[in-house]
Order: sequence, then structure tokens, then C-alpha cells
Amino acid sequence: MNTRTTHAAVVVDTRHSPFCHLRPLSLNAVTIDDAFWAPRRRVNHAVTLPEQYEQLERTGRLRNLRRAAGWEQGAFAGRFFNDSDVYKWLEAAAWVLATERDERLQAQVDSLIALIAAAQDADGYLDTYFTFDHAAERWTDLAVMHELYCAGHLIQGAVAYHRATGAHTLLDVAVRLADHIVATFNPEGLQGADGHPEIELALVELARDTGDERYLRQAAFFVDQRGQRPPTISGKEYHQDHAPVRAQREVVGHAVRALYLYAGMTDVYAETGEQALWEALDALWRNLQDRKVYITGGAGARYEDEAFGDDYELPNRRAYAETCAAIAHVMWAWRMLLITGEARYADAMEIALYNGVLSGVALDGATYFYENPLADRGGHRRQPWFGTACCPPNIARLLASLPGYFYAAADHGVWVHLYATGTATVDLPTAGAVTIRQQANYPWDGEILLTVEPASPTPFSLFLRIPSWAEDATIEVNGESLGTAVTPGRYTEIHREWMAGDVVRLTLPLTVRVLASHPHILNNHDRVALVRGPLVYCVEAVDHPGVDPWDLVTPTRAVWQVDWEPDLLGGVAVLRTDTVARASAGWAGHLYRPFDARGSAATGTLLTAIPYYAWANRAAGAMQVWLSVDAAR
Amino acid sequence: MNTRTTHAAVVVDTRHSPFCHLRPLSLNAVTIDDAFWAPRRRVNHAVTLPEQYEQLERTGRLRNLRRAAGWEQGAFAGRFFNDSDVYKWLEAAAWVLATERDERLQAQVDSLIALIAAAQDADGYLDTYFTFDHAAERWTDLAVMHELYCAGHLIQGAVAYHRATGAHTLLDVAVRLADHIVATFNPEGLQGADGHPEIELALVELARDTGDERYLRQAAFFVDQRGQRPPTISGKEYHQDHAPVRAQREVVGHAVRALYLYAGMTDVYAETGEQALWEALDALWRNLQDRKVYITGGAGARYEDEAFGDDYELPNRRAYAETCAAIAHVMWAWRMLLITGEARYADAMEIALYNGVLSGVALDGATYFYENPLADRGGHRRQPWFGTACCPPNIARLLASLPGYFYAAADHGVWVHLYATGTATVDLPTAGAVTIRQQANYPWDGEILLTVEPASPTPFSLFLRIPSWAEDATIEVNGESLGTAVTPGRYTEIHREWMAGDVVRLTLPLTVRVLASHPHILNNHDRVALVRGPLVYCVEAVDHPGVDPWDLVTPTRAVWQVDWEPDLLGGVAVLRTDTVARASAGWAGHLYRPFDARGSAATGTLLTAIPYYAWANRAAGAMQVWLSVDAAR
Repeated sequence: MNTRTTHAAVVVDTRHSPFCHLRPLSLNAVTIDDAFWAPRRRVNHAVTLPEQYEQLERTGRLRNLRRAAGWEQGAFAGRFFNDSDVYKWLEAAAWVLATERDERLQAQVDSLIALIAAAQDADGYLDTYFTFDHAAERWTDLAVMHELYCAGHLIQGAVAYHRATGAHTLLDVAVRLADHIVATFNPEGLQGADGHPEIELALVELARDTGDERYLRQAAFFVDQRGQRPPTISGKEYHQDHAPVRAQREVVGHAVRALYLYAGMTDVYAETGEQALWEALDALWRNLQDRKVYITGGAGARYEDEAFGDDYELPNRRAYAETCAAIAHVMWAWRMLLITGEARYADAMEIALYNGVLSGVALDGATYFYENPLADRGGHRRQPWFGTACCPPNIARLLASLPGYFYAAADHGVWVHLYATGTATVDLPTAGAVTIRQQANYPWDGEILLTVEPASPTPFSLFLRIPSWAEDATIEVNGESLGTAVTPGRYTEIHREWMAGDVVRLTLPLTVRVLASHPHILNNHDRVALVRGPLVYCVEAVDHPGVDPWDLVTPTRAVWQVDWEPDLLGGVAVLRTDTVARASAGWAGHLYRPFDARGSAATGTLLTAIPYYAWANRAAGAMQVWLSVDAAR
Repeated sequence: MNTRTTHAAVVVDTRHSPFCHLRPLSLNAVTIDDAFWAPRRRVNHAVTLPEQYEQLERTGRLRNLRRAAGWEQGAFAGRFFNDSDVYKWLEAAAWVLATERDERLQAQVDSLIALIAAAQDADGYLDTYFTFDHAAERWTDLAVMHELYCAGHLIQGAVAYHRATGAHTLLDVAVRLADHIVATFNPEGLQGADGHPEIELALVELARDTGDERYLRQAAFFVDQRGQRPPTISGKEYHQDHAPVRAQREVVGHAVRALYLYAGMTDVYAETGEQALWEALDALWRNLQDRKVYITGGAGARYEDEAFGDDYELPNRRAYAETCAAIAHVMWAWRMLLITGEARYADAMEIALYNGVLSGVALDGATYFYENPLADRGGHRRQPWFGTACCPPNIARLLASLPGYFYAAADHGVWVHLYATGTATVDLPTAGAVTIRQQANYPWDGEILLTVEPASPTPFSLFLRIPSWAEDATIEVNGESLGTAVTPGRYTEIHREWMAGDVVRLTLPLTVRVLASHPHILNNHDRVALVRGPLVYCVEAVDHPGVDPWDLVTPTRAVWQVDWEPDLLGGVAVLRTDTVARASAGWAGHLYRPFDARGSAATGTLLTAIPYYAWANRAAGAMQVWLSVDAAR
């Protein structure tokens, strides 16, 4: 890791990390002006951030800070980890302010930073729960009390604000807190790590931002604390404390804790290149992708302990699939991608973004899902806030920083991970500044035009991600078919001397894909999911009057009609086909009865599927992703 | 309710309950000498009871009593509800001593009763956790601390011992405790009820045993406490405290708590006949049977809160289905049966007994299941004991008292609920003593011979339960076909003048039934369960070398071979058929992929199914009840 002085609004700043293949771009270097993400990001800025600020005030989270600062009296309000929501909101605001001018927001941020600075102790300690009557309990219950977790979010928020604006105000607070942590936790001092990881990745980012390697070593210290015997946390799988991290091969325990830890481990690897850490990360990633992830990119099957289940344990109706876990899945995937440049990580990131993350927030940006089930009877509805409100500001900071995930640079070229109308300006060591203009109506349409604009004609490579689902994808450059293979699940490298105005046409065939799942996912037996491009679809009651959507049968030889509905759910392509519904009504009063090979009576009906992310934005009713399949039709 | 002086070893003594149709028999009036239950009951007596007594000692449960009695020093050991396990063991021992002579067991019981009496406070209070340092906390946390639950099990144990032996030693302790409770909880005193029901049914039984109606009124008081506003317990569904019991229509919350409460409500109804209570019980029963019960009679779908799920939420691999909940299902069904004489309650009781209850204990009587999943990968194994050890002594007391559930009397005849070789002697008001000799190899064989032996020729009715699954059941009396209809799901009444030696031949066809489940049980989609008589079957890895039993496909047009295997699992009939297995191995490295209507490659194999209750008694491996069905085969 090299010390450096320039700052850029980079989400995970691996630009100087020795074991990273890719260099992320600053938010200032990217625009997203498309019809899919740009409106969501405007709502995030215009609705979500102000409403969440109100919630932070209304629920006492800001008052807790004022109380710690000595500005107000009264008791601490809410849960002991509530500071973290303030910091995550601040991080979201920082990413917005990197590219948007918003005086009201800037004023809120300024006063909030002043407040946080005032709430900090002289020795650098900062946690509003552990003040006054609870001050003596500091660092005494690491497994439960989330002190280092809150510290990590403060540090992440401060790093974001520094990168976004160059201002040191909050970074100075974070450095004082981090120094206090470094002085407190070390082989001669306190052992242990937080029961909820977050400090690890935050300290690596702080090290990258300040050039101070002590923070990297501190992150590694916390990573190494897990799995010690005797345990310094709990010794339990719940905390990923059952084994040393380098010996872990199965994703277990609390899903958000697990994925934050793996992200932190990946950040440490990016700086150290330690092979044993990579072997664990690689095995954990494979276990997640091959056995434990929802088709939506959601993670964490169980309500009990908000935890990963066993291999292939992925219930639909009782899926926990916390919004924060899908976000953490993106966080981890992004880091793995930066290290390797392998498309499978970008594929996973894209699926989580378009499905399991985006379902977490309503189209109006004002209500949220904590759990993201894949089947429901209509009772699961988004809420404006939660007692444990981790998910709302988490999705806000991700949407605010989203452009940072679309492109990357490497010595030899420009990488395009995600597709949406907009631009990216990349500084290449050999070629200087290159602008890529992307024109696309993705994910509704698979044709993507990329106009390349180098300052002057220059040779370099353009790397385009071909999603693993994109069989028969094609690429043309200036109207001519590309000579090299276009392989799904890989980046296609286009190396040439680029001239201003060169046009690349990438065509990703958006056929409706009918997917089955591993037979050991017992609840998906003889069921299929409809997927088009990166979007997972579902059926909702409101589109099927008189028919229970759980009764819908999917014909395997269906002819799918893809209808663009500009006025539906903010504009979506729906999938339609003629099919039948099997009457579950005939079962009234029976739970078990003799199997009838003919099945229940079937009546013809039209099946209409909408993107999963958009469900529960209309009238409440049953929903299902995995549909009964009828091989005979 | 009438005061009376005679005592009999009756499990739920509704013999004088004004709103009960049936009168249960004393254990002394029934013998079970069959090849199915008698060996289990001998193991229960010879292995389970002694080993559990050792566990009570080893885990400090008995020492907690000695400590409360002032006989030993030291700290309270274990969970605060641990007294209840001692009392349930004592109840099991009492039912054994009703019919068996066992000096060692009698000596243990005598000394245990003396110990319990010594541990009781002068004012009647008894709970070893709430002694010394915790004495000031008595009755301060009813929702959590199980004081009345423990009291209820003491009372049940005392009533059982009194009924079994006529001895008042433990009953006197129970009466003092009950009097203390009556003096403490009343409209002028403490409000509230226990967070875990049990006291309700125990107090009704104490009222029946002593003739003291105060205890009935106290049970009704506790029943009525639930659902008050402001709440006296927690106000939560978990405690069935979300609504007044008479307004409850859906079985919700912690399954064992729920079913114990419903059993207590049923006991109160048996004495009061209050219509509003019955309407709630009837609706709750239908909700359980129509939407929330496993095919095994297991109850409680969720690990989180050990609770009932939503309607049709019945996962197989993550079924909680606590052994105690299946036992509580039997307890409730028995009370509903005594009130109504309707066969559907006996059907439910029988299914739970042969499947979800019996799976809870190993064939050797020494290890137990807490959860009873319907699918497993081989990791779920019975344990010799648990920190929360409610299930082991619960199954011990049920097996010890089992003969009490087989028959009943009514004014106009004798009722036969369950089938096994043995005898029952019934005193009929009009006909005097009648002995019924049953000869059967049930559940392996469906032919049941009943020899009727009245003291002298006399007219009365014999009621035989025809299980709801027994299509084409037939009855002959002295070789002649019965003139009246034999209807599944009802009791067939045979009214005649019976003479000694009259023989009734009941034939229940034990065809292999292939059952499907309601389509809204998502995880059973296109799956079937194999059932023969009352026994649910499953497939286990140990019987399918080289084949993953989760891959087995059940042909719908199978010819089933029923093979009696005398040396397997204590003697079982296994089901066999030629079928195929679909190779899940081909999916390695894939979690989701395009649906292939042809399915995975199938290879021929022999399917061997064993009774569910007997699984996990051999080598560990995958198990499944609900098998993939192939309508094309």
C-alpha cells in the first residue's frame, strides 16, 4: 500500500492496492443517465435521504448524539447500535454530495459532523450508548454490543465524506477514534473483535485513505481474532467465530455478519496478498454461490439467528434474505471483482443489485423490506422504518454510490461491468483520458452502444462483461463483427487502436429463461423461475384477478410475450403467456389426501409476471417466484 | 362435577364430567400384550425410567430439590424450569406402578416424594429455583419463569400417583401448593397466568381428584387471563396472549404452549360446558388439522419461537415438530375425544402416537429427538438428554400411561379407540362387568379379533373406531357380516345381546396409500408420502447404497411389496418397489440452470421405505418422507 495525497470519490479504493487487478473510478468520473437507475437515484436523493433524516431525528438517534455532546439531557433512546444508522445515512449523503449540489443536505451534513465531533470523547472514543451511566461498560461485551461495528460505520462515513468532498472534518474524528482503537486492541492490550464485523473493512479503507498502515494491521488483527481458542468473541458459528478465518470453508451464521467479515477479509487480502486468506475467500464464495444463495442474490435463509441455512436450504416463503445481506453480497462481490477481474463476481453483483437489493426499497423510496421472501400470501409489506433500522440507510448509501460500480480501469484498458446509459472518463497510464459513452435501455433491452472517445488515437483494451446468462451475445465494432469469441461469464477484451467516435455494439439476447434449481432445494421441486437478462420475475395476485397466483402452472413450451408497460411500476417489461391454474380451492378442508396423477382441475388463464424487485408496490396479495411447472404443456 | 371417593388410574378422569360423552378406563382395567407397544413399554420401564433418573441426578435436578429442602448446599443448577422434569418422571413412574410391581422404582418414588415434601415451603410454595437468593422474585415474572408450569407438573404427577396407588403422600403436597396458588391468584390478588400453560389442565385434574371445585375455578381463572388488555402475560401470539381464548380461531405461537393451553381449555369445558369455549376449541382444532399439522401428527413448523407457522407452512427439513408438541397433540385429542366420542379425534391421536410421538425416542429407549424433521441429510441424531429436557420424561409418561387411551366406556356401551392385543374390563351401568379380549398384529396386519365376555348375556353396544383411511373396512360378528354400514372416520356401533365368547372380526385394509398434500404446502409440490394403516413411511440412506434417498422418484403406478422384516428395527413391515433415482450429482457446481423437461438422468433402483418412527436407529444418512413423484411412471 502506498501513501498518496490525491483523493477521489471511490467506493472501495483499491487504486493502489498491490493485489488488485482493477482500479475503481471516482463517482465524479461516471454518470448514469438511464431510465432504470437514474430515477431510483433521484428518488433516493429527493425522498429517501430527507425522510430517513426525519426518522433519525424522530427516533432519538440524533438526540443520542446531542446528549453525548452534552447539548441535551435525558436517557439514551433505542437500541445500542443506533449510532450506526446515522453514520450510514451520512455516508449516503456524502456520496450524493460527491456529484450533486444540495445546500440543504450540505447544511445537514455540516451540522451533523459538528455534532459527531462534539459527541466524541477527548480520548477519541465515540459511541453514544456508552456514555454517562454506561461509560464504565465500554469494550466489556464485544460479542453483543456493536461498539466496533458503530465505529466502523463512522469510519466508512468519514472516508466517504473525505473522498467525496476532500474535507477532513469528519475524517479527523474517524482518525481519533481509530487511533483510540489501535491503542486499545492489540496483543498487549484488549483481545477480541466486534460480534458484528464492519470495523475490519472500514479500517482498511481508512488505511487506504490516510496512507497509515497501522489501520491495515489493526483490521488484520480483528480478522485474526475470529476462531481463537479460547474464543475472544463467542466461539460460535453465529459470529463466524467457530474456526480461524483461514480454516473457514462454509458460509455460516448470521448472514450480514458473515458477508461483512468476508468483505473485510477481502480488503485485507487486497493489501497483503496472503494466499491462505484467498483460499478461504475462494472456498467461501463458491459455497455461497453453489449452495446458499437465492436466485435473487439474497442471502441468509433462516429467520432464527438471521442466518445462513445448511447447503440447499433456501425456503421461499420464509426466506429471510435480509436487504442488508444482499447489499453485503454486493460489497463482497465488488471487492472480489476488483482483485480478480473475473466476471462471475460482477454477475453475482448484478443479480443482487437488480433483485435482492432493489426489492428492499419501494418504488417511491419511502418504505423498506427487512426480509425479502420469494413467496408470500400478501401479508409482507414494506415499512417506513424499523426498530433495528440497518436496511434503510444501507440501501440509501448503495444507491448513492452506485455509479462507482459500473466501470473500472486497469493498466491495459477500461472495464465495463454494468450497463446503463451514461459516461465514464478513465485515465489510462498509457493512453491518457478516455471517455466511454454508453447508450442502453438495459435491462429492458439488450442492445448496448458504447462510443469510445480517447483524447487522441491510442491503443488499449476495452473489456466488456458478457453475463453468464448471455448465450449468443454478439459484439460489433464500427459495424463489423468482432473476430474473437464472445463467451458468457467472461469479459471480452477488444484490443485496438481506438479513435474518437469508435462505436461498439454489444447485443445481449434477452430471452426469457426458465430456470430450475438444484434438486436438493426441496421447496423448488418441479418448479421454475422466470428470468430475463438480470431480472428475476414473479407473479402477483393483483395481475391475476380470480386466480390465486400460487396455483399458476408454467408451461415448459410456453411462447413468452414480452410487453413493455410504460405506466406500470415505473415502467417495466412484463412477461405473459397463456397457461392454466390448478384449483387449490378444491382442497378446502383437506391437508393430505390420495395422490391423483391427473392433478387438480385446471382452468385456462393468462400468466403475467413482473420483475421481482417491483412486487408489493400495488394492492397486497399473494406473490411467488418459483412457479409450478407442467412438463406436459 | 361431583365429589367422589373412589380412585382409579385414569389418565384424564372425565368419568364424572358432565360434558363428556366417554368415561376413560383405569390402567388396571386394561392390558396391552402385543408385539408393537408392549416391547416399547417394557423398554420404557426397564431402560428409559432408570436412565432418566440418572440424568435427573447427574444434571443437578434432584440436588436442586435437596438444596431447597436444606439437605445440601450449593447453587441452583441448570434452567429455572428444571423441576418440571422431575415431576414428569414421577408421573411416568406413577403410571408404571399402577400395574407393575417394582421395588426399586417404588423406593425411588418414595424417597423422591419425601424430598419434594421437604423442599416445599411452609406456606405451600414449591419451586427450587425461587429459593434463597431468588425467593424475593417469586411470581414476579410469570411470562418467562415457568413457576406455575412447574406447579402444574407437580400437581399432575401427584394426581397420577394418587390415582395409581391411592397414596396421598404427594397429593397432600400438591394440595398445599394448589391452595397457595388459589390464595395468591385471584381477582383481589395477583393477576396473570403462566407464560407456559400446564397449570390449567393440572388444576382441573386436581379438582376431579379431590372433588374441590376451587381448583376448577382457578383453572378457569388462568384460562381467562389470556388475552386481557392490558395484558397480564405478554400480549403476544407466542404466549397465546394476543386475544381472549374465546376469540381465538387460529393456532399460533409456541406450539407446546398452545396445545397445553387448548388441552386445559378442553378440560375446563368438560366441566362447564360453556359454548363459547367450545366454539373456540372447535375452530382451533380445525385450523390445526386442516392447515398446520404434519402428516406425522407433529406440530409447530418453526425453529424460531418453536412456533406454529402460517397456514400451510410445513417445511420438512427444518420442521421443528417438537416431540412434546406431538405429545400435547395427543393430550388435546384425547380430551376432545372424551367429550365428543368423535372418531376424528382418535384418528389424530393415533397418527401422532405412531409417528410424531414415537419418533421422539430411539428403539433402545435411551436417546431422544427434540425436533422431528421429515427430511434430513443425516446430521440429526437422537441425544441422551438436553439442557431443556422436556421431551424425554414427556414421552416416558405417555408410554407409561398408554393403555389408558385404548378404550372407554359410556352408559350404552364399550368404545374401542386403538387396536392392539390385550384386554379391557369395563363396568357398564346396565350390563355389569364386560371383558373385551383383543387379538391383533396391528399396525402390521389389519385383522382384529375382539372376543366379548360379559358376566351374563346382556344387551349393549360395542363401538369400534373405523380410521378415516380404512376404506372397505369390514366387520363380522360370529362369522356373519355386519348388517350396518362401516364408515371410515366414524365409530361403528354394534348393538346386540352379547354372550360370552362372541367374536367380532374387524378387518382394516392396510393398502399402501400414496398421499399428496395441499398445494399451498410449497415444499411438498409434486411429492407424495407413503402411508400404510396409521404408519407414515420414509426412505433412509442406509437402505439405498449408492443412491441418495433424496433422489428417489416414486412411481404413481407402483406395485408395492410389503415385506415383514422380523429382524429389522425391532420388526417392521417395509415397503418396496422398483423405481428410479434422478441423479442430483449432475448438478454439482450448479444451483440454478435452465429447466430441462426431460429431467436428470434416471437410473433404476429399488426403493425401500421404513416406518418413520424407526428412522435414525441405524447408520446416519439422508432421510425423506415426501418423495418426488413421477406421474409418467
